[in-house]
Amino acid sequence: MRLSHVLSVDQFDKPFLTEMFYQAGWIRQAAGHSIVHLRGKLLANLFYEPSTRTSSSFYSAMSRLGGTVLPINDVTFSSVSKGEILEDTVRTLACYSDVIVLRHPEVGAAARAAACSPVPIINAGDGIGEHPTQALLDLYTIQVEQGRLDGLTLTMMGDLKHGRTVHSLVKLLRLYDVSFNFVSPVELRMPAEYVRPGIDREFTELEAVIEQTDVLYVTRVQKERFNPVGDVDYALTTEHMTIAKPSMTLMHPLPRVNEIPLALDADPRAAYFRQMRNGLFVRMALLMHVLG
Amino acid sequence: MRLSHVLSVDQFDKPFLTEMFYQAGWIRQAAGHSIVHLRGKLLANLFYEPSTRTSSSFYSAMSRLGGTVLPINDVTFSSVSKGEILEDTVRTLACYSDVIVLRHPEVGAAARAAACSPVPIINAGDGIGEHPTQALLDLYTIQVEQGRLDGLTLTMMGDLKHGRTVHSLVKLLRLYDVSFNFVSPVELRMPAEYVRPGIDREFTELEAVIEQTDVLYVTRVQKERFNPVGDVDYALTTEHMTIAKPSMTLMHPLPRVNEIPLALDADPRAAYFRQMRNGLFVRMALLMHVLG
Amino acid sequence: MRLSHVLSVDQFDKPFLTEMFYQAGWIRQAAGHSIVHLRGKLLANLFYEPSTRTSSSFYSAMSRLGGTVLPINDVTFSSVSKGEILEDTVRTLACYSDVIVLRHPEVGAAARAAACSPVPIINAGDGIGEHPTQALLDLYTIQVEQGRLDGLTLTMMGDLKHGRTVHSLVKLLRLYDVSFNFVSPVELRMPAEYVRPGIDREFTELEAVIEQTDVLYVTRVQKERFNPVGDVDYALTTEHMTIAKPSMTLMHPLPRVNEIPLALDADPRAAYFRQMRNGLFVRMALLMHVLG
Repeated sequence: MRLSHVLSVDQFDKPFLTEMFYQAGWIRQAAGHSIVHLRGKLLANLFYEPSTRTSSSFYSAMSRLGGTVLPINDVTFSSVSKGEILEDTVRTLACYSDVIVLRHPEVGAAARAAACSPVPIINAGDGIGEHPTQALLDLYTIQVEQGRLDGLTLTMMGDLKHGRTVHSLVKLLRLYDVSFNFVSPVELRMPAEYVRPGIDREFTELEAVIEQTDVLYVTRVQKERFNPVGDVDYALTTEHMTIAKPSMTLMHPLPRVNEIPLALDADPRAAYFRQMRNGLFVRMALLMHVLG
Repeated sequence: MRLSHVLSVDQFDKPFLTEMFYQAGWIRQAAGHSIVHLRGKLLANLFYEPSTRTSSSFYSAMSRLGGTVLPINDVTFSSVSKGEILEDTVRTLACYSDVIVLRHPEVGAAARAAACSPVPIINAGDGIGEHPTQALLDLYTIQVEQGRLDGLTLTMMGDLKHGRTVHSLVKLLRLYDVSFNFVSPVELRMPAEYVRPGIDREFTELEAVIEQTDVLYVTRVQKERFNPVGDVDYALTTEHMTIAKPSMTLMHPLPRVNEIPLALDADPRAAYFRQMRNGLFVRMALLMHVLG
Repeated sequence: MRLSHVLSVDQFDKPFLTEMFYQAGWIRQAAGHSIVHLRGKLLANLFYEPSTRTSSSFYSAMSRLGGTVLPINDVTFSSVSKGEILEDTVRTLACYSDVIVLRHPEVGAAARAAACSPVPIINAGDGIGEHPTQALLDLYTIQVEQGRLDGLTLTMMGDLKHGRTVHSLVKLLRLYDVSFNFVSPVELRMPAEYVRPGIDREFTELEAVIEQTDVLYVTRVQKERFNPVGDVDYALTTEHMTIAKPSMTLMHPLPRVNEIPLALDADPRAAYFRQMRNGLFVRMALLMHVLG
């Protein structure tokens, strides 16, 4: 299977995901050993919005495969943005590089770039649209931590209305047999299109579902976006972890602010830094697939 | 011939250009194959002004030769610029690198840098002064597209007064037998020093010369710089292309704004993206020459 | 000896320094030859404050060892800094890299980073705290220029109150038999903790000690920080150099402003650019030690 661009989780089917996870697992085993499959290849990291986390992850992934990265983190200050349309910037960088990783504030920017680019485009987030590689690493982390994807109960907590991360992950998990609990303030509920009536369940408090949860996926809630009732602040506590399953996996896309206290970092169920490291392995697998 | 610094097109003679074009052609053939002539060498990309396009081109050129690039795109924000004179900054970077590519807003900055640097300086634009590697890639593109340099009719259109790009290219083409048409608003005419009286011809409308043109070189016109008369706006149209030669080469240093409509990109005569890609090959040839 | 983090000059003992200088000397001999001990390794250059000089030195050091550098010079503009604590940023980058070089405005930041990082932290300056690799390269330069460290008379001139550079160097030189002269305005005297009563000597004018000086270490004085009396401005002159020893070594951490006139650059005793180049060799030695 040949995947020229990576624009949306809608592109991913089960065989592709299986292949990616097999490759990522192989890379994870080899960690520390040099893998030089992409020597001589150049990746352009084209970030119209700053995102040190994502750009660093791709930078490291490409470097660890023996390739080189052209970092363009300052687009808004640069001549590229002076009146030049995205399409021309992409065609320019395609003259110099073998793959372009694009972060852009507008929905659909990645598709526009792909329509004119002679080299593969990888969508690293376009506005409130997609962020497919984040969904991929989230899914891979669940697979690694739980040993399976089918038959799990997954609880998502936080701002479920605005987060492209949770939306992409829900879409991807629809390929598997997963039960969902959505925990959020009323104002920040999961959009209806992602909720299966009569199957997925919605709550305003974590207490109702924490005990039955296999994977707890926490995201940030910006307090100015809702009216907190009582002491409900959608932050995890040590009490929550006490009644949670010993086998539960606790995830967060990071950066966190107050949703998960530092005291929980030592809990073996806290998987968010392993999740981030998995991002490196998954992106290495993806780059090998796209360029290899 | 040993070229320690690349400061001005005045340095280039025909034998040197022939050598560069031979090397660039060889690199173009090998595109996609790893060339590791400069492994272990470090290029410092010292940009006092942002220019993602030029800095990316050098970044890619050095990387594709197996070398490494130290990007310094943020000089104005950095400690380097805090009261430190250019000479000290250059000597500092010369301690760490094997070649310095310099973009600076002041005319003569590259020569100042070269006067104190123990490593080669490549001028990537100093104010309204020179931009020799742009002229080199423009010349190479004409050679590749037209198969020759002698006997051509070249038309330059746009702001011919302020553009260092067109000035450098005119100087370089004087080495060959080329007829020039200069098309511009009266306020933005080519400076007298670049015009040969009785040989080069000046116009205010493209229609007068489009049919006889072998190479049309379009540059940006900033409308606030002249008083447009009627509908003359120095933008190319599909009508122009209809009456142009089938073998004409259409060039633009990019970025474009409105001078060339997107609809023309599919025209096989539109060479501006090939021109940009040639910039990669020419700069690779130049780096091999300077460092090899 | 295994040194996991490099946080303070207090970590360095004589055997370690001897080893570093031996390695740096070996690297200096091999300069120009490719050293690929760290191929496949990634260094994260995490700079919360701009310092092109220091970040470029580490960038070059890692590159010349065959490794790759992830440059993060724009932390204050990036999402990393949006409310995220230093510890989470460090743990994130530790997922992607093998060593982190940290410049931070707060004293103790490097120690905080080391406390949570699974990869080595190298302190590249934390506020008015430490800058151990600068002290290391200064010490190495004295060793190379003078051929020894014991029995020397070292004069430090300028702002001795605020400079972390001179403080770290004094601490390091305490391991050897060195006599100190401290020359500064009264307002900018060396803090008492660094002065040995009855042994080290303090002056307000260089003339008093220049003739007996083996190593003259000049630093910047910001004039707004003291009331100059007469023409004392703590800048070196050609007259000073005339009465100085022919074997004296003149050092400055750079960037300079007016403390050393350009006319002295050609004096063979002017060692500040060799000092900077030594920084490259010392940091290469240190990286090999930390990662090798």
